[in-house]
Amino acid sequence: MAITITAFAQSPDRGRGLARDMGVRWALEEVGQPYAVRLLSFAAMKEAPHRSLHPFGQIPTYEEGDLRLFESGAIILNIAQQHPGLLPNDEVARGRAISWMFAALSTVEPPILHRESALFTERDKPWHVERLQMMDDQIHHRLDALSKHLGDAEWLDGAFSAGDLLMVTVLRRLTTSGLLTAYPNLCAYVARGEARPAFQHAFADQLAVFAQSS
Amino acid sequence: MAITITAFAQSPDRGRGLARDMGVRWALEEVGQPYAVRLLSFAAMKEAPHRSLHPFGQIPTYEEGDLRLFESGAIILNIAQQHPGLLPNDEVARGRAISWMFAALSTVEPPILHRESALFTERDKPWHVERLQMMDDQIHHRLDALSKHLGDAEWLDGAFSAGDLLMVTVLRRLTTSGLLTAYPNLCAYVARGEARPAFQHAFADQLAVFAQSS
Repeated sequence: MAITITAFAQSPDRGRGLARDMGVRWALEEVGQPYAVRLLSFAAMKEAPHRSLHPFGQIPTYEEGDLRLFESGAIILNIAQQHPGLLPNDEVARGRAISWMFAALSTVEPPILHRESALFTERDKPWHVERLQMMDDQIHHRLDALSKHLGDAEWLDGAFSAGDLLMVTVLRRLTTSGLLTAYPNLCAYVARGEARPAFQHAFADQLAVFAQSS
Repeated sequence: MAITITAFAQSPDRGRGLARDMGVRWALEEVGQPYAVRLLSFAAMKEAPHRSLHPFGQIPTYEEGDLRLFESGAIILNIAQQHPGLLPNDEVARGRAISWMFAALSTVEPPILHRESALFTERDKPWHVERLQMMDDQIHHRLDALSKHLGDAEWLDGAFSAGDLLMVTVLRRLTTSGLLTAYPNLCAYVARGEARPAFQHAFADQLAVFAQSS
């Protein structure tokens, strides 16, 4: 059945692949599933037709026949459970990979998104510099643990999985912050993710949307 | 096979059921699975044996034979997929319930946890009052959408699911903040969750740990 996802008509990141459709596109490329994209303006995202798909008025959503999903984590999990390539067959290894998916979204991403948001909303506040240091410390606390776990391994737990796909997607948000440079193994890990053909295809496709809209 | 989870030996919330083992206990009670609890000191959580189960040195973890999981979301999903009672059988409804699980952890929880953490780390800062208002606004933004979606319904999408279990668990963190009182339907929703026998059993069990340690 045909798959349709939603994405920003005008991505706020200017085609850097940081919007949440990027992980979904990447997952679909990894498992070789074609998909259509319905682009939404910021206004349309908040209106009733899209709210019926996504109660919080965000992108991406996923439609496939009667199946209608929201939240990129849920969408990527669904893709990974439906098609081979993103989760190990072995039940024990699969459980670990799914743990890493939640770790990326629940443990590593929140302090990173928090910093990103503060750069918009608090840049002119007198406390910005002091708060920035506190936020950076929280991020380093997570990256320290992640870097120690990864060590010299290629991926987080054996073969590349949806856990790696989400973790690389989350870590890419730090590229312009410079915070990742203290961890050469995490930089190499992100680069390995970005070098995958499926990532490259997905990145080119979201960049084309930006190029057409600008 | 026997299930063992980990929890705080001395819960920082003084038995209010806000630590992340609470949702896992609740899920296990909903599906009628007995489990053992291994209590960990804050020091033990950061040491190598526990780090091998949980790379970020947190609780809870889940062990069942060779299966070893971390992240409460991943653990609850595994319980819900292994046993009937927490996810609909219908594939379309199941997809929605899993979307709500991710929405609870990825969209609703981060601004709530952020506020909770700022109450510890920024209470003495000159900017605390102004920042608190900004954080409250972010939380209200999410609660507005959630309250509109819920309306007069009993649960988020049909029958009670793991999505409701996680959403109620997240919203309970707001009890002492007073932020929930603006949404009578969300207050009633949380109360419905707390009234479930499985919640009551799980709550009593985590409270017993606090009572014994104090």
